Order: sequence, then C-alpha cells, then structure tokens
Amino acid sequence: MICVLAGGVGAARLLNGLKDVVPAEEITAIVNTGDDAIMHGLYICPDIDTVTYTLAGVNNIETGWGLKGETWLAMESLEKLGGETWFNLGDRDLATHLYRTGRLAEGAGLKEITTEITSAMGISVNLLPMTEDRVETMVTLLESGDEISFQEYFVKHRHDISISSVRFNGSAEAQATSGVVDAIKEAEIVIIAPSNPLVSIAPIFSVPEISDAVKARKEDVVAVSPIVAGAALKGPADRLLNELGHEASVEGVAKYYQEWISTLVIDTADFDSAENIESLGIDCVVTETVMADSQIAASLGSTLLGLKR
Amino acid sequence: MICVLAGGVGAARLLNGLKDVVPAEEITAIVNTGDDAIMHGLYICPDIDTVTYTLAGVNNIETGWGLKGETWLAMESLEKLGGETWFNLGDRDLATHLYRTGRLAEGAGLKEITTEITSAMGISVNLLPMTEDRVETMVTLLESGDEISFQEYFVKHRHDISISSVRFNGSAEAQATSGVVDAIKEAEIVIIAPSNPLVSIAPIFSVPEISDAVKARKEDVVAVSPIVAGAALKGPADRLLNELGHEASVEGVAKYYQEWISTLVIDTADFDSAENIESLGIDCVVTETVMADSQIAASLGSTLLGLKR
Repeated sequence: MICVLAGGVGAARLLNGLKDVVPAEEITAIVNTGDDAIMHGLYICPDIDTVTYTLAGVNNIETGWGLKGETWLAMESLEKLGGETWFNLGDRDLATHLYRTGRLAEGAGLKEITTEITSAMGISVNLLPMTEDRVETMVTLLESGDEISFQEYFVKHRHDISISSVRFNGSAEAQATSGVVDAIKEAEIVIIAPSNPLVSIAPIFSVPEISDAVKARKEDVVAVSPIVAGAALKGPADRLLNELGHEASVEGVAKYYQEWISTLVIDTADFDSAENIESLGIDCVVTETVMADSQIAASLGSTLLGLKR
Repeated sequence: MICVLAGGVGAARLLNGLKDVVPAEEITAIVNTGDDAIMHGLYICPDIDTVTYTLAGVNNIETGWGLKGETWLAMESLEKLGGETWFNLGDRDLATHLYRTGRLAEGAGLKEITTEITSAMGISVNLLPMTEDRVETMVTLLESGDEISFQEYFVKHRHDISISSVRFNGSAEAQATSGVVDAIKEAEIVIIAPSNPLVSIAPIFSVPEISDAVKARKEDVVAVSPIVAGAALKGPADRLLNELGHEASVEGVAKYYQEWISTLVIDTADFDSAENIESLGIDCVVTETVMADSQIAASLGSTLLGLKR
C-alpha cells in the first residue's frame, strides 16, 4: 500500500502517475481540507475536487481547477443578481457541491461522501479527507493585519498580497478521518506530494494525530519538492516560503519537512543542492519532477516506488 | 394601495394583469412561503420565485415554473453522481437559490433578500414573504399515513397520491413579515389570488396575525376562485378540495373563504352558481377569470379594482 499526502494540482498529477505504475486500489491519498469553503451555503472542497476531477480525467487543464468543457450560466445569473462571484463555480461543478452539501445535511460524513463521488466517477484511488472536522486555513495580511480565509487570499486576491502568517483554525481539536492513521502506519511508503508546503501540506500536519503518525514513519517518508530552481511550478509557494521566513529553495523545503521525512526528491535543475540536503541528514534523490506529461508523472511514480525499503 | 395574497402561477398572472392597470409600486403581494424547501443545502422559495420570474417576464410558460431558455447541466451532473434530482433546478435558476442561501447565511432576512432579487430583476411590485419564520406545509398521505413535505407531495409524487390532511408546521408561532399587516390594513382592496386555497392561501392564513388582519378587512376582501366549472385550471386544487372534505366548486371555494371575504369573483362558466354564493352572504361577481393572455388578465385586474369601495 502507498500513502500520499495531497494538496491540489501537483498531488493530482503525481497520483495519476502513481496509478500508472501500481494498481489504483493500492493508493490512499490523504487530502487537505483546510482550504474548504462554504460559498452560497454550499460546502466546497477544492483540493478533494481537483484530485477527483484529475483522476477521473475530466479536469480543466488550462485553469488548473474545475471541469473541462464547463459552462457558467449559474455564475452569470448570480452576477446579475449582485451576488459574489469571485469564487467561480461552473454549472457542472456545482453538482459536486450540491451533492456534498445535501449529503452532509443528511448526516453523512465527508469521507463517505467523497467515496460516493469518486465511485460515481470511476476512481479507484482511495481519497480520504484529512479530517471530517472543520479546519480552516486562515491567512493574516501583512499590511492591514486582517485575517482572511484561504480562498479569499488565494482566489479573491489571486494570492497577490503579502501575508505575515498562516493559522489552521480548529486543527488542535481535529481528529484524523478514520482510516487516515492506519493508512500511514500500514503504508510501504508515505509520499508527500509536490504541493504547497505551507498551505496544502501544513494543514494536514496541523492535525496532531497525522503529524505524529507521519513522524513515527519518518524512515519511510519521502517528499517531492514543489520548488524547482527556486520557484514554484504553480501558485505562490515560493513567495509564501520567503514571506514566512523560510527559503524558496529545495534546501528550504528540506528544512521545513525535516522532522517528518528521511528522503527528498528534487528536480534535476536543483542537482547542485543535493549535497546541502544530504548534509541535513536527508537522503536526496535527483530526477525529473516537472510532470509536464503523463509519462514523466509515471516515471516519477516509478522512482518513488523504487524508494520503498 | 392594493394588497394581494399570492401563491404561484395564478397569482403571478393576476399580478401581471393588475400592474397593467395600476402602477406596480402600488401593489403589494404577500406570498406563500409554506412550500419553501431546502434542497442540497439551498433555500428555495418556489412561490416567490414563480411570481418574481413571471413579473420579470422571464418565466417558463410551458413548465409553469423556472426560467425560459433554461439549461440543466448541474442537474445532469448531479444525476450522474447519484444525487436527488426530482426537484429540478435549472442552471440559471440555481443562481437565485445560491444568492438567497448566501444572503441568509450572512444574516439577511427573506424580505430584504426578496427585495434585492426583485430589484435586480427590475420588478416594482412589492413582494413580501408571508413570514420570515419557517412555516412548512406538511401533507399526510391517505394510504400510508406518512407525513411528507409539500414539495415531495407536489413534485416528487406529482400530486398523484391521495392525502388525508394538510398541516402548517410552525405557523402558530410564526410572525407576519414586517409590513404585511400594515399592507393589509392600509390597502384599498385585499385580493385573494386564484391560487390553491388549501396549500397556497391557507398557509398564509395559518399565520395568526395575517388571518386576523384579513378578517378585520373582510368588507374589502375579494377572492378570485381558482376553481372554474368544478376543476382547477392548474394543479390539484379540485382533488384536494374533495379529499379534504370541501366541494370542488365555486360554492366550495366561497364556503372555504367565508370568514375572510365579502366578495367572490367567479368565471362566466359558473354563472349558475352566483345565486348560491350570494345566499351565503357573499357578493358574487361573474367575469372572465381564465387568464389565457395578458389582455384577459388586465381586464380581470380592472374588474377587481372596480370593486374598491
């Protein structure tokens, strides 16, 4: 069994690569829910949905979120009514949120609902929300000192604003979803996907049980750096690392993950940094990590599986 | 000022007719909310929406609900996910429910939200939800004895099932929306629209303040019969009247409304019943009431305004 700690796009690509080299049923992804949002009364799980849509092959590659071939009539009408439309919800995408919100109202849990949605979409990878409790990634803006939700920061402000801190509201009391700790304990290898360390993986580790379980498996935990040649492939990971006092480099990633991992996979572009990483007591594997196509993703998946002890 | 007690389609047509003969600003409609439903977490007001869409000229005439030129991508996707789709929500229509649900979550009241939506759609008729409290029209099925919500009865079962009773859950404690009682008190004439007496108008009267206010204006209250020649023009009003121990006739309507009205307007098809109605102590006006086009609706509106004392 393989266990993957997952954010959005980067994790989704890696999961696609892994399922090309190992049966999907053997993969469990523990997915960030810190950026979940309630919009217009609908419960939205952006990272779970990105992973789901990508694994189902229906994701919108251009936007990096939502469904391909989407239409936007609901949002167009909502705009005419004067409603908030900065969080764009496609007509087909809305169905996912309607389904989830309706099932939550019926008393179903996020794990069960996620399984229902992934099953309906023909996905065999086991997706587990990190927690069924509410954990909210909150961001404090540098200039105003205002604290806003992650989606306000990420989507409304297009992460084009400096921040001074990130907090995971509710995480101290949050329980890991049932199956999450066992998946970590029983995995042959635990992989931290190339997702944003500070706002995609950190919320997963903010759940105490999960952080402890991963630490206990440290010798079998491998992270894939989301930073390549000092820059994030997508999103603001590089800026965030700088703003929050880390280094926007593979060394910075290594240091940030140091308490949880024994191996860091970095891109060939960062070959020169391997020695620095090894000097931190972290094994360093250099390979092609930029998953521009499914072959590279599968190759990366293969490399990762080769790290199983 | 004109005050209209309103359900869905019949009321919407009458309101359209009235606004052709009197400035829209002078009309206040008190709209049934007993058939409001929460579906997939969204708060839906079918009667308010039917009236709104009709007054805005964007209603779907064929279905009698929803918007014209609608698309159904959200529902198609929801069906693929295995979600409940018996309550059909068009993509553009969804925007109304998203807007309302989001504003309710922000703490706005149903009156304020309704005004925001009608203003955005260019409507000058003043629409007031009968109450901002939750009143739920509940229907008990004859055979099973099960009690179900009005929308389950009306839409899921297509009202093709016998019922033994109707109840308005929460009505005893419900307050009339602010402005409702004043609108009734100050109106030159109070009109009961040709809506279903038992499930569109009765829920409005189930709010004690409203029933009392209308009774106090009895001499100025005129109802338009929704029953023509023993049949409902639309929906199950005739069957419901029979099933619940009333007569499916203009006499049955007159008796049902007796404590609230001084005048009943009936269709020319029921000319022969005028005498029976007068014998109940109710003035009877015979005119064309089947609003097949806007001219007939305006003519009916004109007749009603002529009944002002």
